[in-house]
Amino acid sequence: MPATASAFVPGHVTGFFSVHGDEDPLAAGSRGAGAALSDGVTVRVEAGAPTAVELNGERSRIEAVGNVLDRLGTTARVVCETPLPISAGFGVSGACALGTALAVDAAEGGGWTENQLVTIAHAAEVEAGTGLGDVVAQARGGLPIRVEPGPPPRGRLDGLPARPRVEYVSFGGLDTGSVIGGETGSLSAAGERALSDLREAPGVGTFMAASRQFAREADLLTDRVADAVDDVEAAGGEAAMAMLGETVFALDGGLSAAGYDARACRTSGGARVLDDVSAVPGGADAPRD
Amino acid sequence: MPATASAFVPGHVTGFFSVHGDEDPLAAGSRGAGAALSDGVTVRVEAGAPTAVELNGERSRIEAVGNVLDRLGTTARVVCETPLPISAGFGVSGACALGTALAVDAAEGGGWTENQLVTIAHAAEVEAGTGLGDVVAQARGGLPIRVEPGPPPRGRLDGLPARPRVEYVSFGGLDTGSVIGGETGSLSAAGERALSDLREAPGVGTFMAASRQFAREADLLTDRVADAVDDVEAAGGEAAMAMLGETVFALDGGLSAAGYDARACRTSGGARVLDDVSAVPGGADAPRD
Repeated sequence: MPATASAFVPGHVTGFFSVHGDEDPLAAGSRGAGAALSDGVTVRVEAGAPTAVELNGERSRIEAVGNVLDRLGTTARVVCETPLPISAGFGVSGACALGTALAVDAAEGGGWTENQLVTIAHAAEVEAGTGLGDVVAQARGGLPIRVEPGPPPRGRLDGLPARPRVEYVSFGGLDTGSVIGGETGSLSAAGERALSDLREAPGVGTFMAASRQFAREADLLTDRVADAVDDVEAAGGEAAMAMLGETVFALDGGLSAAGYDARACRTSGGARVLDDVSAVPGGADAPRD
Repeated sequence: MPATASAFVPGHVTGFFSVHGDEDPLAAGSRGAGAALSDGVTVRVEAGAPTAVELNGERSRIEAVGNVLDRLGTTARVVCETPLPISAGFGVSGACALGTALAVDAAEGGGWTENQLVTIAHAAEVEAGTGLGDVVAQARGGLPIRVEPGPPPRGRLDGLPARPRVEYVSFGGLDTGSVIGGETGSLSAAGERALSDLREAPGVGTFMAASRQFAREADLLTDRVADAVDDVEAAGGEAAMAMLGETVFALDGGLSAAGYDARACRTSGGARVLDDVSAVPGGADAPRD
């Protein structure tokens, strides 16, 4: 019988970022800042079973998950469940990749360190072209700041100590690959300015303001997102766009207060193996850490 | 009225370590590995109030907490509560220091990053002579491996991805200052061997075996600790000594199975600001992350 294990990986919204490409997926990455969410992905694996991947009950091809299994030199049935919108800026593919790495290691009784598994999942996600910074941020949790791009030991993380409640609403997806695979010079310059602002005056207010400025400067705002951000501000709250999706996130009850039908969650700790395969994370029921 | 905020910091037991002294508290530290526990310390601060420190309802002088307030340039009433034994190898002083740093920053509305607050608490603890590695491990959570000594950006952490249940029993304290302040050459050599073993075959079994070997080689085992570790192994479990206390920790129900009246908890995520000052963490009620 194949060995089973489960992991939980938080969702992750990025407020601003800069692209740091490299031929080597262990050196490629992004700088930036975001929020890890208690709405995330639960990944259950049957290590050694023929490889098959499910997302929310449907057979799915998540390239980053296949890449992780290849790098671990194993096969597995991988069952991912999430309340998060897909391809809308929540890092679902990175969460599936990292959750697969953690759960396969647990099912096989160990053999890897967390940094090694994070590095494998990061490389798998970069090779798939679906993300540059979610995996390292999801591994850390909180409000992660990607100070130096890439996975350990090259990458460096910091974080904001606050743990605000977060609301979000998504109007649809944006194609991550077409943005981070295209011309990113002015986007990255805007991201570096935002990071510099945040490091000069660390705090949640600076993070949200720098994120809004980044979305404008990088020319990524859509009308619906811009309207929602403005509505939240008009109602006295703080909101920004989640990179890269047509998605708005707000602190505390900001979106509800502005009349939006938003989903609420908490800032989450980092990705972790679950010690009970029957645990059903998500929202207020997210696993304890 | 002074602003209030709270933080939770996990307890931390070290299985093995090596001492890396330095005149500069930002460069001093330890290598080693341990476990962050859901039994920890909740710290509530009233920032700006005259400085006064309480531990479990009694006025207390915790030098590391005073050092943190000095470094933050503020005063505060600091109320620490914990179910953990004091001075018995659970990192309570480090937890009080880190919790004070996180809670004061939250009460004052931000201004510091997590790495900055960890660095302040680490330096405060080193200056007090009460620890070298607990603070960075408590900030990270899980089963932390201190790969390079000291706080960010010098220090480097990794971790084991497992999240076992942990039991512990304490027979009393050992004086951390007299051990880490004395001749530590052979202790550190044993600690480096243990770390090398763990990095060669990462896993919880290696961690526990390397910890037992370290305690023997460093000549820190007391009779009561040695007996309890043997009893757990005889009952089919895994146990080791918590550095530095006359304390035994075991995986899962290892101590209970061997007939000891042990306290049970979980592996915990890292230190975090609490968003509800009425939360009462500890054991099964530890705050979600």
